[in-house]
Amino acid sequence: MSNSLGTLFRVTSFGESHGECVGVVIDGCPAGVQLSRECVQQELDRRRPSGQPGATSRREPDNARILSGTLEGHTTGAPICMLVENTNIQSDAYGPLADIPRPGHADYPAGVKYGGMNDPRGGGRFSGRITAGFVMAGAVAKAVLAGCGVEVFAHTVRIGRVRAPGTEAESARASCRTNALSCCDGPAAAAMEREIEDARAGGDSVGGVIECVATGLPVGIGEPVFSTVDGEIARALFAIPAVKAVEFGGGFALSAVRGSQANDPFTVAGDRVVTTKNDAGGILGGLTTGMPIVVRAAVKPTPSVSVKQRSVNLKTWQDAEMSISGRHDACIVPRAVVVVEAMVAVVLCDLGLQGGLISGCVK
Amino acid sequence: MSNSLGTLFRVTSFGESHGECVGVVIDGCPAGVQLSRECVQQELDRRRPSGQPGATSRREPDNARILSGTLEGHTTGAPICMLVENTNIQSDAYGPLADIPRPGHADYPAGVKYGGMNDPRGGGRFSGRITAGFVMAGAVAKAVLAGCGVEVFAHTVRIGRVRAPGTEAESARASCRTNALSCCDGPAAAAMEREIEDARAGGDSVGGVIECVATGLPVGIGEPVFSTVDGEIARALFAIPAVKAVEFGGGFALSAVRGSQANDPFTVAGDRVVTTKNDAGGILGGLTTGMPIVVRAAVKPTPSVSVKQRSVNLKTWQDAEMSISGRHDACIVPRAVVVVEAMVAVVLCDLGLQGGLISGCVK
Amino acid sequence: MSNSLGTLFRVTSFGESHGECVGVVIDGCPAGVQLSRECVQQELDRRRPSGQPGATSRREPDNARILSGTLEGHTTGAPICMLVENTNIQSDAYGPLADIPRPGHADYPAGVKYGGMNDPRGGGRFSGRITAGFVMAGAVAKAVLAGCGVEVFAHTVRIGRVRAPGTEAESARASCRTNALSCCDGPAAAAMEREIEDARAGGDSVGGVIECVATGLPVGIGEPVFSTVDGEIARALFAIPAVKAVEFGGGFALSAVRGSQANDPFTVAGDRVVTTKNDAGGILGGLTTGMPIVVRAAVKPTPSVSVKQRSVNLKTWQDAEMSISGRHDACIVPRAVVVVEAMVAVVLCDLGLQGGLISGCVK
Amino acid sequence: MSNSLGTLFRVTSFGESHGECVGVVIDGCPAGVQLSRECVQQELDRRRPSGQPGATSRREPDNARILSGTLEGHTTGAPICMLVENTNIQSDAYGPLADIPRPGHADYPAGVKYGGMNDPRGGGRFSGRITAGFVMAGAVAKAVLAGCGVEVFAHTVRIGRVRAPGTEAESARASCRTNALSCCDGPAAAAMEREIEDARAGGDSVGGVIECVATGLPVGIGEPVFSTVDGEIARALFAIPAVKAVEFGGGFALSAVRGSQANDPFTVAGDRVVTTKNDAGGILGGLTTGMPIVVRAAVKPTPSVSVKQRSVNLKTWQDAEMSISGRHDACIVPRAVVVVEAMVAVVLCDLGLQGGLISGCVK
Repeated sequence: MSNSLGTLFRVTSFGESHGECVGVVIDGCPAGVQLSRECVQQELDRRRPSGQPGATSRREPDNARILSGTLEGHTTGAPICMLVENTNIQSDAYGPLADIPRPGHADYPAGVKYGGMNDPRGGGRFSGRITAGFVMAGAVAKAVLAGCGVEVFAHTVRIGRVRAPGTEAESARASCRTNALSCCDGPAAAAMEREIEDARAGGDSVGGVIECVATGLPVGIGEPVFSTVDGEIARALFAIPAVKAVEFGGGFALSAVRGSQANDPFTVAGDRVVTTKNDAGGILGGLTTGMPIVVRAAVKPTPSVSVKQRSVNLKTWQDAEMSISGRHDACIVPRAVVVVEAMVAVVLCDLGLQGGLISGCVK
Repeated sequence: MSNSLGTLFRVTSFGESHGECVGVVIDGCPAGVQLSRECVQQELDRRRPSGQPGATSRREPDNARILSGTLEGHTTGAPICMLVENTNIQSDAYGPLADIPRPGHADYPAGVKYGGMNDPRGGGRFSGRITAGFVMAGAVAKAVLAGCGVEVFAHTVRIGRVRAPGTEAESARASCRTNALSCCDGPAAAAMEREIEDARAGGDSVGGVIECVATGLPVGIGEPVFSTVDGEIARALFAIPAVKAVEFGGGFALSAVRGSQANDPFTVAGDRVVTTKNDAGGILGGLTTGMPIVVRAAVKPTPSVSVKQRSVNLKTWQDAEMSISGRHDACIVPRAVVVVEAMVAVVLCDLGLQGGLISGCVK
Repeated sequence: MSNSLGTLFRVTSFGESHGECVGVVIDGCPAGVQLSRECVQQELDRRRPSGQPGATSRREPDNARILSGTLEGHTTGAPICMLVENTNIQSDAYGPLADIPRPGHADYPAGVKYGGMNDPRGGGRFSGRITAGFVMAGAVAKAVLAGCGVEVFAHTVRIGRVRAPGTEAESARASCRTNALSCCDGPAAAAMEREIEDARAGGDSVGGVIECVATGLPVGIGEPVFSTVDGEIARALFAIPAVKAVEFGGGFALSAVRGSQANDPFTVAGDRVVTTKNDAGGILGGLTTGMPIVVRAAVKPTPSVSVKQRSVNLKTWQDAEMSISGRHDACIVPRAVVVVEAMVAVVLCDLGLQGGLISGCVK
Repeated sequence: MSNSLGTLFRVTSFGESHGECVGVVIDGCPAGVQLSRECVQQELDRRRPSGQPGATSRREPDNARILSGTLEGHTTGAPICMLVENTNIQSDAYGPLADIPRPGHADYPAGVKYGGMNDPRGGGRFSGRITAGFVMAGAVAKAVLAGCGVEVFAHTVRIGRVRAPGTEAESARASCRTNALSCCDGPAAAAMEREIEDARAGGDSVGGVIECVATGLPVGIGEPVFSTVDGEIARALFAIPAVKAVEFGGGFALSAVRGSQANDPFTVAGDRVVTTKNDAGGILGGLTTGMPIVVRAAVKPTPSVSVKQRSVNLKTWQDAEMSISGRHDACIVPRAVVVVEAMVAVVLCDLGLQGGLISGCVK
C-alpha cells in the first residue's frame, strides 16, 4: 500500500514480475469513451522489448485482456480491469542469489519491510514489469484526453553521455516514433545506440533522460496546493523504477538565472493568452497555463549488470561478491518512454476530471 | 482542492496572504507527543524575514497559536489547528495591476480557474505566505520524528551562479544554522550574499538549490508503488511555490554514468547493512535503505521583480508593460530552507506511521 | 483520525468541548457561492440551547467566525476555516469523576485508545459540542445546494414514547421551524415537551428519532458501490454522538413486506419520471431517483443523567457508583435537528460535486 | 467511482453481472497471512445459490482464482487480485424490457447517470452478483482478523413476517451453519422457509433482517469522528444492494427509553472492564468498547418479482406494465448472510490496521 493513484480517475496496480499476471483496475473512467483492446495493445507493444537496442531477451506476447468496464467498444463507467499474463518466466536465474541483495535493487529494503514474506522472484512488485499495467492505464487515459484535444508525447533526450540537441519541432515527432530509441534527432539516436552497445559490451548498463510534452490543455487544471500538476506528475513518475529526478520547464537551470530571465512574458495571440517562451513548463502555481507542459525524468542505469559487484550475504552477515546473469536490459530508457507518457496521461486525466475538463468534453 | 496532504498524518492548509490568517490542521498526530507553542514558534522564526539577505521588508511577528489538539504540553490525538495572523498587510500595492497578470506568478491561471472569484490580494492562496502553515506542520512532524531518532536537516547549496562545495560533514551543520543563508560553507555563504545583493541592486531576483538530508530512518519505510518515499517527498516539495525540480541522491547525474558506477555497494557495518556510497539518496524501490535520504529542490528566482516586464491587459486584451513594486524578497531561498525541511518531515511522518515506525516508538 | 469527510467537498473537524474553540475547514467549496457570516450564524443559532425544552444551561454566544476562504461575501475556492470560541466552560464538574468512566459515554474506550493522553474535559472530542463545527459546514453546503435548487429539511418525528403522526405535508414545515421541538405536528410537539419534562424531572434523559428530507436532487447522484447516497449519509450521521440507527424510506419495515409491495411503481409526470410512492426513500442502487431522499436517525437518550449509575473505578479496579451533575441536556433531539440537516447537506454537496451536479449549476 | 473501500486495507471491486468476471483487488493486506484458495472458495460457496430456499436457479461454480499477492500459501504484502468467472449467463431474458426500467432496481437512475452507456445486462454493476467479490475480500479480512482473535458471525433474524427469538447463545452458532437459512433457531428457520415458499408461490419475493456479531476486538478500535466503527460498517453494508436500514445494539428501540435504561453499566470482570448489558452494540463514541459489536441490517425483498408491475416506457414516454421472468431469488437473505459478514470483516480489518490492532498481532 498504496498501489492506487488518483482521486477521480483512480488506477490500482496489481501483479508481480513472476506471478500469474500484471494488471490494473481503473476506477472513475467516464462512460462512453471509445476503447478497444487493440488501442491498449498498441501501447503495450511500444513497451515490449522487441527492436530497442539494449532490450532484455525476455520476450512475451503481452496480450492485453480487458476483463470489465467496457461494452461494445466503449467504456461503461464501471471499473476497468485489464491484465497481461506472464508467460516467459525463468525464476531459476534468481535462485542462487537469494541471500545476497542486488545493489541498486529493492531486494534489501523490501525484504526488511515485509519480513521476508514478499515475492522475491524477479523483483516481485519492484520489477519494471509492473509498468505494463501503467501502460494499459495510460492507454485509457489517453483515450479520454484525446476526446478533449489533449495529446501526450514523450521522447528520449539523453542516453548516458549522449544528449539530443534542443527541444525539437512538432515535425520531428513522426520520425521519433519510427526510431527504436524514441529520439527525435537522427544523428543523436545513432550515437545513443552506440552508447548502449558500448555499455552492454562491458557487461554494464546505461540510463538517460526522457522528456514528456502535453499539449492542448486548457488553463487552470491542477488542484493547489498539494495536488498541483507538477507535484502529481512528479509523484507518478517516481513510481517508475529507476527514475531519480524530475524537472519542469527550465528546471534546475532556473536556479542559476535572474527572475527577469526566468519569468515567461505573457502576450496576446488571437483569442488566447500565451507566453513568449515556456521556462515554466506550462505550469504556474501548480496550475496549467495553457502552454505545453514540459517535464523531464532522469532514469538511472538499470542496476542489473553482469560485472562483479560488492554486496552482503544476509545469512552469513559477511561481505560478498555477486554478478547478475539472467536476461536484462542494458538500457531501459527507450522502453520507458511510453511508461512516462502513461503516467503523465493518467495524472492529467485525474486532474482534468477534478478541474471539470473532461466531463465537459466527453458528454 | 486539494489542500490536504497525507494519509495517516494529514495536513490541511488554509488561509491567504492578505486574509485574516494562515494556518493548518493536522489530523492523525499520535497522542502523547511533547509539543509546545515555543517549539512551533522557533520554526516559524526561521522562516520569518529578519536577517536573511534579500528578504522582504514585510515584517510580521508571526506568533504561532495552537487552537486545538494539545493539553498540558502534549498532543492528545485530536486534530491540531494552528495559525498565525496576518498583521502587516498592504494590499494597495497590488491594486493598479489587477487586470495585468504578473509574469511568473499564478495570477493568470488562477483567475481563469476560479472565474475571477479567487482572492487576488498578495497572490491569495498562491503566495509564499501560506508556507508559514507548512512550517507549523513541520514543527509537529519533527517533534514526532525526533521521538524516533529521525532528524531532518536542510541547507542552501546554490544561490544563482554560486554553488557550495560538496555535501558537508555533520560538523558543518552547527555553523549552518548561525548563517543567515543556511549555507554550511562559510566562503560560499559570503559569495551567495553578494549574488543576492547583486540581483537586488538590479531590481531583480535570484533562485537557488536547497538540499535536505534525513537521518535515523529505519529500513523499509515507504509505500510502493505510488506512495514511495521519493514520490511523496517530491509531490510535497512542489507545493512550495517556486520549486521547479527535485532530485534524489545522484539525481540527474545518474543518467550519465554506467550502472556499475551508479549502484551503491552494500557492506556490513556492525549490526547494520549500509552502502559504501549513497547515490541512491537513501531510497531503493521507493523504500528507505537506512542510509540518509538526500533530496535537492531547485527554487526559481522569485517572480516579483521591479524591472519592467511584458504582460497583457486582460481588460483591453492588449499587450502591456508592468513593473512590480511592493515589498518582495530578492531571494527566498534562505527562508525556504525551513519550509523544505517541513515538507520532508511531514511526508516522513506520514509514511513512517504507515510503515509502523512511529506508533512503535511513541508508545 | 479521521476527522475529515468527503472527497471533493471535504470537511475537516477540529476543536474540543473545553478547549479554545470548535471549528471546521471546508476544502473544495466552489468559488463564487454567496456566503455571509450571518447565514452561518443563523444555522448555529438553531443548534444553540436557548428555547428548546430539556436543553443544557450551558449558554454560549457561539459567534461564527470565518477565518479564510471568502472575500466580499462570496467563496473564493480556497479552504474555508470557520470556528466558534468556547466561552462558558466549567471543567470542575468533571474533575471528581476522572477515574470513573461515565456509562454511555466514550470516556472509557477513548482513554484506552489514546493511552490516557486524550483531552477528557467535557468529553473532549467526543462531546456533542463538536457538532457546532458540523453545523457551520452544513451552512456552507446548504448555500451551495440552494444554488442548484436542492433543499434539506429535518424534523423531529419521535421523542421517547411519543411519535408524530405521518410524514407531514410541505405546508407543515413553516410551523415546524417556529416550534421549539422542530416537530411539524402541533399536538405531538406538546406531548413531546411533556415527555422531556417527565424525563428531566426524574433526573433522567430521553432520545428520539429525526427524519430528514432532501428535495430537488436530479436523478443519478451517488457513486456506487461504496460511496452510495445511503452509505455516505449513514456514515456521516453516525458521526453525530448518540445516533444508533439509520434507515431510508420504508427502512426496517421493508423487511416484513412482499417485493410487490416494496417496489415503487414508476409513472410519467410531465417531463419527469416519478414513483407513485417512495418506500425507496429516493434511492435505488445507491443513486438518487429524483424523488425526495428520506432518512431517519435514531438518537439515544443523552447518557448524562443525574440518577445513580454503576461503573468502575479504573484506579482501584473496583465497581463504583456515580451520579453526573453539571449542565446537561435532558433531550438533545431538538438541537440535533439542524445537525442532521448539516450532515445530509454536506454529503449531498460532496456527491453532487462528484456527480457533476453542482459545478454545473454554480457556474 | 467509487468502487474502493478502506484506507489501509483497501478493497476495489470490479466486474459486472453478465461480463467476463466479478472480482476484487485488496491493497494493504499485511504480509505473512496464511491464505489459501480453498479458504476463499469456502466463503464463496456459502453465497452460492445451492440449497437455500428461494435461491435463483442461476448456478455457477464460482471458482475462486487468486491472481496476485500470494506465494506458497501466504500473503506477500502485494495487492491481492481475485476473481470468479461468469459462466452461466442468459442475457436474453433482459432484452425485451430494455426500455422499461424495473421498479425497485437501479435501471432507471443508472441509465440517467451514465447516459445510457452503462452495462444493463443483468443489472451490470448494480447486480447482487458483484457481492461475490465482497465475499472474497471478506475471506481475506477474516483470515487477518482470525490471527488477532477476532471472529465475525452473521445470522438471519427475520424473514418477512417471521422473527427469530432473541439473540442466541454461542452454542446455537454451530446449528446455524448447517441450516439453509443461517438462522440459529430451528423452529423459526422452519417458519421462515414457509414464508419464503409462500412468497415464491405468489410470484413474489420477501426480505428480512440479518444480524452480525463481532467478538474478540480490543478496546478503542475506530477513528472518530468520521471513520467510526458504526459509520464505516453502515456505509459498507449499504454497498449491498437491498440493504435499507442499519442499527447497532439497541438501535431504534433506544429512542424510546430513558437514558438510565439505555446506558450499559460498567463492571470489572477479572482483568477486563465489561458492561452488564450491551445496548450500545459494543460501540461508544464510534470506538469499540471490548464488548461484541452487534449490528442488524434490513434487507428489502428482491425487486425481481413475476407479478405484474407498473412502470414507464422511456422510449414512448408512457406508462407501461411489466412482468419479470428470468431466474431470480425469491429471498436473498440467506445468501446475503456471508456478504454481511464480509463487509463487517473488511471494515474491522481496515479500522484495526489504523488502530494498531493487526500489525501488532500479525508480526
